[in-house]
Amino acid sequence: MAFNGGSNEDEILINDDNDLPSILIHRNPAFNFLPLTNLLKNHFRLLDPHQSPDLPLHSFYSRHAHSVRALVIFGLCPVTEDTLRHLPSLKLVVGSSAGIDHVDLSACRLRGIAVTDAGKSFAEDVADFAVALLLDVLRQVSAADRYVRSGLWHSLGEYPLGSKIGGKKVGIVGLGRIGLEVAQRLSAFGCRVSYTSRKQKPSMLFPYFSNVCELATESDILIVCCSLTTETHHIVSKDVMKALGKKGVIINVGRGGLVDEQELVHFLTQGELGGAGLDVFENEPDVPKELYGLDNVVLSPHNAVTTQASIESLSLLVLENLKAFFSDKPLLSPVS
Amino acid sequence: MAFNGGSNEDEILINDDNDLPSILIHRNPAFNFLPLTNLLKNHFRLLDPHQSPDLPLHSFYSRHAHSVRALVIFGLCPVTEDTLRHLPSLKLVVGSSAGIDHVDLSACRLRGIAVTDAGKSFAEDVADFAVALLLDVLRQVSAADRYVRSGLWHSLGEYPLGSKIGGKKVGIVGLGRIGLEVAQRLSAFGCRVSYTSRKQKPSMLFPYFSNVCELATESDILIVCCSLTTETHHIVSKDVMKALGKKGVIINVGRGGLVDEQELVHFLTQGELGGAGLDVFENEPDVPKELYGLDNVVLSPHNAVTTQASIESLSLLVLENLKAFFSDKPLLSPVS
Repeated sequence: MAFNGGSNEDEILINDDNDLPSILIHRNPAFNFLPLTNLLKNHFRLLDPHQSPDLPLHSFYSRHAHSVRALVIFGLCPVTEDTLRHLPSLKLVVGSSAGIDHVDLSACRLRGIAVTDAGKSFAEDVADFAVALLLDVLRQVSAADRYVRSGLWHSLGEYPLGSKIGGKKVGIVGLGRIGLEVAQRLSAFGCRVSYTSRKQKPSMLFPYFSNVCELATESDILIVCCSLTTETHHIVSKDVMKALGKKGVIINVGRGGLVDEQELVHFLTQGELGGAGLDVFENEPDVPKELYGLDNVVLSPHNAVTTQASIESLSLLVLENLKAFFSDKPLLSPVS
Repeated sequence: MAFNGGSNEDEILINDDNDLPSILIHRNPAFNFLPLTNLLKNHFRLLDPHQSPDLPLHSFYSRHAHSVRALVIFGLCPVTEDTLRHLPSLKLVVGSSAGIDHVDLSACRLRGIAVTDAGKSFAEDVADFAVALLLDVLRQVSAADRYVRSGLWHSLGEYPLGSKIGGKKVGIVGLGRIGLEVAQRLSAFGCRVSYTSRKQKPSMLFPYFSNVCELATESDILIVCCSLTTETHHIVSKDVMKALGKKGVIINVGRGGLVDEQELVHFLTQGELGGAGLDVFENEPDVPKELYGLDNVVLSPHNAVTTQASIESLSLLVLENLKAFFSDKPLLSPVS
């Protein structure tokens, strides 16, 4: 439908029940989140500037932006100082991801805007995926699957030996919701778990290292699952990779920016690291092509969070956060 | 070295210390097991008919077979009634695998020949691999890795949703050493484990089904890890696949013959099963080519047992079984 200069409410509104509170959907035009839209539209008046691609954004803002009190982020669409400046009444940013490094938290704090994240919705799925990547790299599941599919088992015979899981020293970078779930799973495999985190968690029995380099020195495998912040950017640096050593393995289910990707590619292609399982990358969906040919690397398209169950669980959490906000109750998953 | 009709002791002997007890290495010519050979040769006089490809087998047998008291199987080389007939003094068959379906156990029993298997050597590694296959099929690790490597993330965007692990009903076919290790690992993921076995194990708290069809009806996933015997051949039949249902997943780390492979291919290609993770096949190394194009299937070249650690652990067990036999002590891993 083309912008016609007249009323265009129906072009930006998913529903038009004026009695319902208004919610702004904040997304990149290419990304939609239909299960969440379908759930929310029964409870809120949804404003989606990208609902009609022909409607200029300035037209939307001049009409609606002043009244928007709550915004829901679909995916990882950035919420910047500039976003907030256009929304003077905004009091709530509802994130739909575990990490909220795409939200300018300082700017939100200064304006008194509350922010929520995906809470525990993704923790189990991401932990499952981290373990899946670890098992895959050490036991060469994807590489062996390629070997069979290309007919090499028949022509070349036995596949090379994998590496035993039990007894491996696993260092978890960030023992939050996800890290803890990872630790519990790997303990059942007989791995020896230790961790680093902003501060030691007295309730945890796993050995704590205040420094990621020391953790790497004492580990066979690093699992990166902390939040991406200014402090954690490239927390897995060249020095950490050196400390991990030639047989070391890095699993990243956090954010691409937690690992110095250029160094990682160098270490892997030069045989200075044992392997990697990567669900996230610095410039998604770009993946360094140097990794495509490596059998000790498993590559995944930011998939750790995406199961039907986690999407349903997240959608309900977003709904409940919004309901809580509009009825002046405590938010369910506020970012501290 | 050619057979020259004269003495050929050095062609079949790995070492020639006549003071050491003799051991026959029983293997297919194409398969060798050097770490085990290197360990055993320090303790025994090793007779390997395939050491020199030019030496006729009948020549070996006429010279040595009558005196051989112990035989070590490398890999899955069959020990048949015919094998035993040629070795009248044989009293011990040492297997180097978890399953010993390649050994004619009845014939051994009749002749008073003891048989040993790999004991616990492989249980943890095989269990790890079974879980790796399960995680891979449900969370689509190998398929997503292919997606990234072929550049499709960039061109097609998000990969389809996977399936949550927690809460899944997992039926274990054979709660032996391997099955129990699988159960312990999957419990840490929040799976609901039940099992079938020759008989109920009173010490186990997991629900028991006497019938594999009933187990399949109550399960989302079947993990096949029992021994292959006349009774368990094709234990996962067409009826079991039907009972498991369209979303059902089969993981096989036991033996190819436990699953009716022709039916499995039919069910998978027709969309009558949700997926499969297969480490073993009915006619290895032949893998049904119809499976090569399926993204809900993970294929592995009988790799579940092969880690450096399990090979070392097995080699020591074989050595200790042989030492026990020659000093009249109890065997460490006798097959009952």
